[in-house]
Amino acid sequence: MKPGTGESPNAARRSDTSRRAILRAAFDLAGEVGYGRLSIEGIAARAGVGKQTIYRWWPSKGAVLFDAFLLLAEDSGGSPALPDSGDLEADLVAVLRATVDELNDPRYDAPMRALNTEITHDPELARLYSERLDEPMRALKKDRLRSAQRIGELPADLDLDVAVDLIWGPLMNRWMLRSGGLTGDFAERIVAAALDGLRRR
Amino acid sequence: MKPGTGESPNAARRSDTSRRAILRAAFDLAGEVGYGRLSIEGIAARAGVGKQTIYRWWPSKGAVLFDAFLLLAEDSGGSPALPDSGDLEADLVAVLRATVDELNDPRYDAPMRALNTEITHDPELARLYSERLDEPMRALKKDRLRSAQRIGELPADLDLDVAVDLIWGPLMNRWMLRSGGLTGDFAERIVAAALDGLRRR
Repeated sequence: MKPGTGESPNAARRSDTSRRAILRAAFDLAGEVGYGRLSIEGIAARAGVGKQTIYRWWPSKGAVLFDAFLLLAEDSGGSPALPDSGDLEADLVAVLRATVDELNDPRYDAPMRALNTEITHDPELARLYSERLDEPMRALKKDRLRSAQRIGELPADLDLDVAVDLIWGPLMNRWMLRSGGLTGDFAERIVAAALDGLRRR
Repeated sequence: MKPGTGESPNAARRSDTSRRAILRAAFDLAGEVGYGRLSIEGIAARAGVGKQTIYRWWPSKGAVLFDAFLLLAEDSGGSPALPDSGDLEADLVAVLRATVDELNDPRYDAPMRALNTEITHDPELARLYSERLDEPMRALKKDRLRSAQRIGELPADLDLDVAVDLIWGPLMNRWMLRSGGLTGDFAERIVAAALDGLRRR
């Protein structure tokens, strides 16, 4: 219940249930029919609410889908830290392999393509995405790299933003543009190449 | 004139002129109004042809835009080789800086976002794109890396696909997701990090 709204606890609980049903429906439908055919009508029907309930809370299907991703992030316990075994390469390979599995899962692939496409065309949504989803994730990635700096695995003066882009960018780009196979083996080679560089040591 | 079609030379010339006008119009309009509002009607009006002329040659606006990119690639002299001064890092920085300039140019930014978005959602277009645009470009990038291998700048056993993704992927991903500033300085840092690796040498 929002403080000061005068909503009763029961009404707040019903609202929260509806909100969750709507976001779940938006995420699932985006995965099933694709973003192009995702509609407020379809989301309302799947969630068992009226269209007006959705329009009261969100201006567009893009906004609903964005909040669905935020809810997913919250439900998975906020943002969990990256594994830290003391072996940066092994930990990054594990994280990127898990990302590959997620990107290859049709339930995630289509909604994530939809969200990324919206971001590509909508600078305001890109700003929101950056602030509420990408930056918190990026902070966790940098935390893991800082831990490697502390034990001397990475140089202390490393540009951490460049490092994050070098490790994660190739994987995301290959996925988005379907420019090659997205496998655990590719993830492993990218991590090794990012850490050791292309030149011979 | 296509051989054996029975078209007269004049008709063939008129066809080619119309085709070029249509592709130019599609590219320009995608840049001006965005892909979402790009329509066959709009392209026809801008090119000064009837809608039926477009539908005779292309099934969709995505197909028109794709051919517009092919024409652009042809007109810029097919695919020019990457510069080869004997200094791989300097050459890659020059190439990536030029890419940054292109991506920051509104005339290219919007049509390229449009094409990339279509690829993201359309595996068949992604296949065509890969075969006719990405693979030829990738072959030229690998040629440049092979030349560096021949003079010992890069190890002979380097996985060239991983190398291309490591050098170009972070830039393209940052552009697509607007996750940070797209500057020549960023391009330079990515090239240095890709060649030397994140670990201290």
